[in-house]
Amino acid sequence: MKILFVDGSPLCDHADLCYGRPEFVRDDGMNPLLKEIRHNPLLWLLVAVPVLFAAHRLAPEADTPLFVLAVFAIVPLAALLSHATESVAAKTGDAVGGLLNATLGNLTELVIALTALRAGQYTLVKASIAGAIVTNTLFMLGASFLLGGLKYHTQEFNRINARLQAGLLFLATIALLVPSALTQADSAPAAAFTRHLSVGLSVLLLVGYGLGLLFSLKTHSEMFASAGSDASEEIPWPMGLAFAVLAGVTVLVALVSEIFVESAQQAASDLGMSQAFVGFIVVALVGGAAEMTSAFSGALKNRLDLSVGIALGSAAQIALFVAPVLVLVSYFIGPTPMDLHFWPGAVVMMLLATLTASLVTNSGRSAWFTGALVLMVYLIFAMTLYLLPPRAQ
Amino acid sequence: MKILFVDGSPLCDHADLCYGRPEFVRDDGMNPLLKEIRHNPLLWLLVAVPVLFAAHRLAPEADTPLFVLAVFAIVPLAALLSHATESVAAKTGDAVGGLLNATLGNLTELVIALTALRAGQYTLVKASIAGAIVTNTLFMLGASFLLGGLKYHTQEFNRINARLQAGLLFLATIALLVPSALTQADSAPAAAFTRHLSVGLSVLLLVGYGLGLLFSLKTHSEMFASAGSDASEEIPWPMGLAFAVLAGVTVLVALVSEIFVESAQQAASDLGMSQAFVGFIVVALVGGAAEMTSAFSGALKNRLDLSVGIALGSAAQIALFVAPVLVLVSYFIGPTPMDLHFWPGAVVMMLLATLTASLVTNSGRSAWFTGALVLMVYLIFAMTLYLLPPRAQ
Amino acid sequence: MKILFVDGSPLCDHADLCYGRPEFVRDDGMNPLLKEIRHNPLLWLLVAVPVLFAAHRLAPEADTPLFVLAVFAIVPLAALLSHATESVAAKTGDAVGGLLNATLGNLTELVIALTALRAGQYTLVKASIAGAIVTNTLFMLGASFLLGGLKYHTQEFNRINARLQAGLLFLATIALLVPSALTQADSAPAAAFTRHLSVGLSVLLLVGYGLGLLFSLKTHSEMFASAGSDASEEIPWPMGLAFAVLAGVTVLVALVSEIFVESAQQAASDLGMSQAFVGFIVVALVGGAAEMTSAFSGALKNRLDLSVGIALGSAAQIALFVAPVLVLVSYFIGPTPMDLHFWPGAVVMMLLATLTASLVTNSGRSAWFTGALVLMVYLIFAMTLYLLPPRAQ
Repeated sequence: MKILFVDGSPLCDHADLCYGRPEFVRDDGMNPLLKEIRHNPLLWLLVAVPVLFAAHRLAPEADTPLFVLAVFAIVPLAALLSHATESVAAKTGDAVGGLLNATLGNLTELVIALTALRAGQYTLVKASIAGAIVTNTLFMLGASFLLGGLKYHTQEFNRINARLQAGLLFLATIALLVPSALTQADSAPAAAFTRHLSVGLSVLLLVGYGLGLLFSLKTHSEMFASAGSDASEEIPWPMGLAFAVLAGVTVLVALVSEIFVESAQQAASDLGMSQAFVGFIVVALVGGAAEMTSAFSGALKNRLDLSVGIALGSAAQIALFVAPVLVLVSYFIGPTPMDLHFWPGAVVMMLLATLTASLVTNSGRSAWFTGALVLMVYLIFAMTLYLLPPRAQ
Repeated sequence: MKILFVDGSPLCDHADLCYGRPEFVRDDGMNPLLKEIRHNPLLWLLVAVPVLFAAHRLAPEADTPLFVLAVFAIVPLAALLSHATESVAAKTGDAVGGLLNATLGNLTELVIALTALRAGQYTLVKASIAGAIVTNTLFMLGASFLLGGLKYHTQEFNRINARLQAGLLFLATIALLVPSALTQADSAPAAAFTRHLSVGLSVLLLVGYGLGLLFSLKTHSEMFASAGSDASEEIPWPMGLAFAVLAGVTVLVALVSEIFVESAQQAASDLGMSQAFVGFIVVALVGGAAEMTSAFSGALKNRLDLSVGIALGSAAQIALFVAPVLVLVSYFIGPTPMDLHFWPGAVVMMLLATLTASLVTNSGRSAWFTGALVLMVYLIFAMTLYLLPPRAQ
Repeated sequence: MKILFVDGSPLCDHADLCYGRPEFVRDDGMNPLLKEIRHNPLLWLLVAVPVLFAAHRLAPEADTPLFVLAVFAIVPLAALLSHATESVAAKTGDAVGGLLNATLGNLTELVIALTALRAGQYTLVKASIAGAIVTNTLFMLGASFLLGGLKYHTQEFNRINARLQAGLLFLATIALLVPSALTQADSAPAAAFTRHLSVGLSVLLLVGYGLGLLFSLKTHSEMFASAGSDASEEIPWPMGLAFAVLAGVTVLVALVSEIFVESAQQAASDLGMSQAFVGFIVVALVGGAAEMTSAFSGALKNRLDLSVGIALGSAAQIALFVAPVLVLVSYFIGPTPMDLHFWPGAVVMMLLATLTASLVTNSGRSAWFTGALVLMVYLIFAMTLYLLPPRAQ
């Protein structure tokens, strides 16, 4: 849920929407967590967490209400995880902090996927990975451009970071595309081939991700410095609180995810949505809610660097960190190992999303129409997935 | 046939090739239509119209001669429609005129396609849509670059408009690509899915087209103003004449199209051309003849903005306006509704054409080799379609 | 093996690695060929040539040792051919020299492919063509960026040449992609169609290559002049020696290739490598060794223009000159004519390689991470090919 930002600065510093208004935070000596909850309307949704657990105990078969409650419960938990990660990162300095952001930044998505992995729901795991990449690359980026563009005539942003993230995404897309393309002729590629290749590609993607961090945080960090490295507006939590929140909320997210995952399938068909739509669109929007508020807030403050960094950085993190980790972890948990062989439709969407992001960030300028165009690409995907007949994926 | 130009200025003002030389037009009080015909050699082809109707009455089975005559008859009618639309647009001011150009700009293509639609010839309709997009994007753009480049060492043009049109084309290509890609696994996608999706995508493309007009004519029109908004060299027709021509010639185009459509299949096989070649290449070259003279004339006057605007603007108009309108209209005329499910080969060609246009217009500069490269891509398509064995499409 | 460089300057002037250190060359009156061999460690591998011939006579069944020996024998022969071509080019002036470089530049690859063609091994011919394109575009370019980037913080290069070569590669990729895409629906495209189309496309690619030379050497040569047209550091061989080496070494390469081709299949399976891996990766790395030393040496001297020109120029030469020549020549030698119908996996790799090269050379700047990213794309291909189960291609 927390996001990767390559210069290692705590992103949500600039996003008062998700962490309460700073003037309140500075005034009194109240417990920072309670203060946060009091002043951030997003966190009022926390009430959905106990309601969900109670409902699950009372009516474990009521899939649709449980699914909806789980959606509402994940959003504030994600926001809390996000702030906790950032608070730790802020205290540990640029390099370690950047690394922390880069690894724990999508902790919510990781926990949800791990839960689905343990349940052997590989289709849901893969759909949620691909969906998070596509949603961050298109919806988060497009809506940022649109919101910013409605307020400012044109906006400019640092292309260097957009290029790095788009390059990493391009690498990940190739890693997912090539194995399918090269075995296309063979209708049933040897299972061993797919498994070996998936492990090899996962290691390669992790190395690529690591090199990207080395490049942007260490050897060429001056090229990435432009965006919002100025004074932070928000006071981070003390380390003790941050660690406690990190641990406690992770457990809560895991518990909520379990209900979410087991109710998703039935709820989808009850709500008239295809499985694919739930996996790609709903899970991704839920899991990314906290980052979206940050990205949109950046766009409205004419700091598009921030928005582009959050959207593409988070997509790259899921593609090059979360997905490979899941593959490697699947050898230890889960009924059988998971591979990187995605549904061809998902690969096409990821490829087109990456291409779109490359094209629109290439000029370093944007206006409202740029955002509208990107959002319409997302809408095409969402519409197709929504109408997709069952078993087409 | 008339083309979309985003600043709303009547394009053919600058293209004396298609509308006679202005010095003659200004001198006397003759009927402007007759004057036009007298001074524009292209319009001498109008003689083919009565000959075609006579021949069709006398020898309705002589498909090949009828087909050739119809080709020659459509070209001058298209030029007249073009001038009439522009004359109306010139009188109604920028906003309404821009909208008129944007909707009636490809009236000839629209009428031909509607005739084929009514005859239930969906393959021809789709081939002519895809062919017009590919021909405008590659042949018209490439030949403009080549002709301009043979006269001038290097040429520059405003990239903003090229980017907008390429972006719209990219959106349309994704709309045609995604449904096929996502149902690929399913050999027979539910017909209902394809039909619902086609309607949804058509509405989305029309909205996208409308937003593009809003952006380029209204909110950010200053970015698009560079190209030829200066004094017009040509006197538009009076409104009465313009409307009369618009109505009368549209009827003639419809009648000619009917003969064209019913003779095309037989003529193609008599002439040794594949159906695909006729649909993609011949129809598109015939339908676009008037615009091409404008685009080439612009290139020879070192006004590449104009040529690029005509070529890509017209392609975008067909993809985002003509095609969706045909889908929606097919619910009212035509034996069964038409969908947006194109032959995969057509989608690949549109995607590659869009990609090529993006790449070559990206730098805002061109030389003769740029044009040669684009034309060679078109030649690859044409050669493949020409040699394509029957039933491969 | 010698490479195309568009301004016609002898490339390896700047690459002392492959032709000995100039200070030695200038000092004494020794036979230039012997001097070259004495001072260039790469040429010490020439000893593998007689050893290979002896081994082949003594143990013609020992495929694996013969294969390894042939690999070691080709590398120094390629370096000699390279120097000989350059020496002739240097004496004949810019235009003829440029043409010579452009046609004989990949003589080693051509001779290997012709040998495989005569043996009817079309799969190996095609794999080695596709492999050379991918290896030059990704490995040679990526390693140049990486090596240069490890020495210099950032590097700049002339984008014009990179764009021209990427454009030509893009054209070639479309020529290979479209015929497959358009006959996809037809499971068994008429053999006559494929053969006619292959001849047509081959002629078109040769014309495109010729136009590219005309553009870069003649009409717009000033745009390509920036890179290394200054004083040459190396003394070319006398014409007599150059021609003798050209003739003699070509015969040797042909003889070695024969052993290489006939042992490749068996050796691959003995060494546990897939056929695809040998064809795509091993042959391409062997055939390109001499050019690679030039490209890497250019990068280390901060002359990236040179490296990019060698890598992309060589790939374009193989795609637009070597491959079409092989198709046309196959009508005269070889059991049956060869077509341009490549394995879809190969086309995908060429397309992605071209796209990657376009994206990373677009900005005209590079750092070590650019190289790492490109190399990782190559690694994905190599890893997939290595693990590919037999008969998947």
